[in-house]
Amino acid sequence: MARWQPHASERLVAAALELFEEQGYEKTTVIEIAERAGLTKSTFFRHFRDKREVLFGRGTVAGLLADGIGAAPAGAGPLDAVAHALDVIGEQVFTPDRREFGARRSAVIAANPELREREALKELGLTAAMTDALKRRGFADLTARVAAELGALACTVAYERWRHAADRDDFGDVARRTLREVQAASASC
Amino acid sequence: MARWQPHASERLVAAALELFEEQGYEKTTVIEIAERAGLTKSTFFRHFRDKREVLFGRGTVAGLLADGIGAAPAGAGPLDAVAHALDVIGEQVFTPDRREFGARRSAVIAANPELREREALKELGLTAAMTDALKRRGFADLTARVAAELGALACTVAYERWRHAADRDDFGDVARRTLREVQAASASC
Repeated sequence: MARWQPHASERLVAAALELFEEQGYEKTTVIEIAERAGLTKSTFFRHFRDKREVLFGRGTVAGLLADGIGAAPAGAGPLDAVAHALDVIGEQVFTPDRREFGARRSAVIAANPELREREALKELGLTAAMTDALKRRGFADLTARVAAELGALACTVAYERWRHAADRDDFGDVARRTLREVQAASASC
Repeated sequence: MARWQPHASERLVAAALELFEEQGYEKTTVIEIAERAGLTKSTFFRHFRDKREVLFGRGTVAGLLADGIGAAPAGAGPLDAVAHALDVIGEQVFTPDRREFGARRSAVIAANPELREREALKELGLTAAMTDALKRRGFADLTARVAAELGALACTVAYERWRHAADRDDFGDVARRTLREVQAASASC
């Protein structure tokens, strides 16, 4: 099925996820992933640095978060700018058709320490990207770091809720509600 | 010099840090670390799972943070409990004689992607340990997660400041000041 999707990168990700589910991350080789996707090993390496990278994109989310913060309306507070960025993620990454993929991807990552480690590093990258984008908007260093941490937490919690939500809400809606709750919780700390 | 320190674990850490500085993390083997410490390879593996683990202790900081939160006075708010835990870290881990070691360790980690990755995972572990300890004190899930993130950020920023501080303040004092600043910044987000 993965074979007929239009883009090489997406086909490789879908093939990798299938194989990791079927036979485990450890036992799967890059060659098998490429074959399942109907592509060659060299195509794989044009898209991903290694097997571990295939579930983590190429910095897309970090870039979109930074762009989203940069594109927030003038005068937006730090968490308003973060909310704007989370809307962008809902429109361009965590779209409704990705909900099932997200659940499968999370299950594979949770089962493997190497993948959990890579994910931890990627999460730090998201926070760093948001911090830099907030500083470019003129917020003080510590304000930017705090808003980025709260934003990253809201994003993580919203993603958990969105994947499991019975009500099929859009990610952007779930994320805005979650961000307000995070803000209220931080005020009560 | 490392050879004559009293504890095997500390001797191994000191030897590893020296070798990583002298010839790089990649080129250093576990056997070389053990030899420099005047110990055997099997002693190394009784203390650390692998070469990467040698700069990251064995969950001590996470355990101390959790214990410190648990031992905070009854009625402490979430960030008061975190402040209490940071005091414990200042008394038992980031003691004045560790300041120079901390700076050297950070430089070695910054120079190697594998070590940065392990550190990212350890940091997530610290946040998770604080979150669990705060939930055991009865705080709601999201409140506990927010307080743990703010506490982890305060800990990171305080560690950076403490390592570079000209005034030689104790870690606990730096951490309490930083935590108040983080709290003020989150209120202004």
